[in-house]
Amino acid sequence: MTEQQITSLLEQLHQGDRRALARCISLVENDSEGSDSILRQIHPRKEIPVIGITGPPGAGKSTLVSALAGWISEHQKLNVAILAVDPTSPFTKGSLLGDRLRMTEHFNNPGIFIRSLATRGALGGLSAKTIEITDLLKAAGFDMILIETVGVGQSEIEIASLADTTVVVFVPESGDEIQTIKSGIMEIADLFVVNKSDREGADKLVRSLQTTLHERPYSGWTIPVLKTVAFSGVGIEELFNQINQHIQVSGKQSTHKEELLYQRALRVASQQLLKKQRFENFKAELIEASALPGFNLYRFIAEKIS
Amino acid sequence: MTEQQITSLLEQLHQGDRRALARCISLVENDSEGSDSILRQIHPRKEIPVIGITGPPGAGKSTLVSALAGWISEHQKLNVAILAVDPTSPFTKGSLLGDRLRMTEHFNNPGIFIRSLATRGALGGLSAKTIEITDLLKAAGFDMILIETVGVGQSEIEIASLADTTVVVFVPESGDEIQTIKSGIMEIADLFVVNKSDREGADKLVRSLQTTLHERPYSGWTIPVLKTVAFSGVGIEELFNQINQHIQVSGKQSTHKEELLYQRALRVASQQLLKKQRFENFKAELIEASALPGFNLYRFIAEKIS
Repeated sequence: MTEQQITSLLEQLHQGDRRALARCISLVENDSEGSDSILRQIHPRKEIPVIGITGPPGAGKSTLVSALAGWISEHQKLNVAILAVDPTSPFTKGSLLGDRLRMTEHFNNPGIFIRSLATRGALGGLSAKTIEITDLLKAAGFDMILIETVGVGQSEIEIASLADTTVVVFVPESGDEIQTIKSGIMEIADLFVVNKSDREGADKLVRSLQTTLHERPYSGWTIPVLKTVAFSGVGIEELFNQINQHIQVSGKQSTHKEELLYQRALRVASQQLLKKQRFENFKAELIEASALPGFNLYRFIAEKIS
Repeated sequence: MTEQQITSLLEQLHQGDRRALARCISLVENDSEGSDSILRQIHPRKEIPVIGITGPPGAGKSTLVSALAGWISEHQKLNVAILAVDPTSPFTKGSLLGDRLRMTEHFNNPGIFIRSLATRGALGGLSAKTIEITDLLKAAGFDMILIETVGVGQSEIEIASLADTTVVVFVPESGDEIQTIKSGIMEIADLFVVNKSDREGADKLVRSLQTTLHERPYSGWTIPVLKTVAFSGVGIEELFNQINQHIQVSGKQSTHKEELLYQRALRVASQQLLKKQRFENFKAELIEASALPGFNLYRFIAEKIS
């Protein structure tokens, strides 16, 4: 790509052109020529709220995200972007996220943009690509960004570094698991949702979550525990209202915002450094060297990157 | 530390001295002076099997690891190291792993070495520190290394990059969750364990796991589903036998081994590169720059690391 083509693409991106956005995302996702130049010239709007929605497999996150986006588009007339992050296994390229068919209802809604992103496991799952694509969305004129990711563990902690508000979704059946969790997942949540709450055990789980909750490290926010039936839209308005309230409260917490920025910057820096070193032949050389007697991984790497 | 002190420490480490090992681990864990030099001079023994034990919170992983280590020490007369990795939240330094009291029974057993490691969330959880400390253990004369980690998500995928054999532990109550998982966790497991299998639902979960299983990408291994009651030692001998069999089978799969080495190398390289750049003032400069109009994270980082 010429600098002129990039300039024109960026102009379209900043005007909210969806095809230009999709093109930029693909370039960044594949580390294609021009992607660095694009990232260095975008103007992501800082104030756009990023909502992370996470929870164990089977909690109905996709349906919830879809219902939430639909509600926001219809009742708030806001432009919403959905990024579904798929932490693919480094070995078999399988997918933890189920089919995205539930979201096809929005394909013809110009107020909702949907994109899934398969992160390739290794080198920190969510990581740089998700951060970069979120910044593209922030530059493309959306009013709110919803990021869906799966898992109970590291990927969740990572989404908390990216999102202004983190929503953790459970189902009534999650009860037994949750009682044994003392912190971790409890610590990253700004809001809890018990989805499929028309099923047995929902109230019990709500009470159980409420008793284990304590205030977030920033003051002025008590974590709500909400009930939804995403499939039929129950509780979605209240979920939006609570997210909105949290955005207001957390927006005033500059230390928290700075920490988020710092975490993102470290990820991006780490990624950029690896790219700079051009590791094309790294794997072959590594395997060859490792067969020699006295091979030491740390010395090998120190010599490579010096 | 002088080079002479390091040489002497390394000599003790390679002779299996536990105090020297503990000292080296602390130096590496804290990135203290001398840690790079130590890592570049160790001789980790390649053939030492690393067993990753993972699964959701509450599955009884610590009890299982403790029982397994005790059995191996008593019946196989092997030296076992246990590394309990704690994916701490980047915000509140909380801990997902429960108390380690269950393992205190081994404190006076010279054949078992126990260490927990709090990874600091950000920059890839498990990551470099776990890899480095595992290499210290491989240099210190253990016959087998057991790494316990918590979570369903990224941290699990990462343990699969480090371990020769990955054991995924569930409890009978995990049943409802598991049926919705199509891949991901299923793909990293070399062995499944249903722990606390004296509880209701164990056989149902075993059958459910068996029906969803397919062969691992390398041939010659069908994933077993074992039942244990770790607390009373039931099923531990069979677990060891199956792990042992898997080690034999997977040892012949050089492509898989090479992929593991490559994943580890990328992690370590990424970590080394960040260290080299000396990021001490990075956070302060980042926050200052981000307040200026037209701030762009990618341009900021590109200028920093050039």
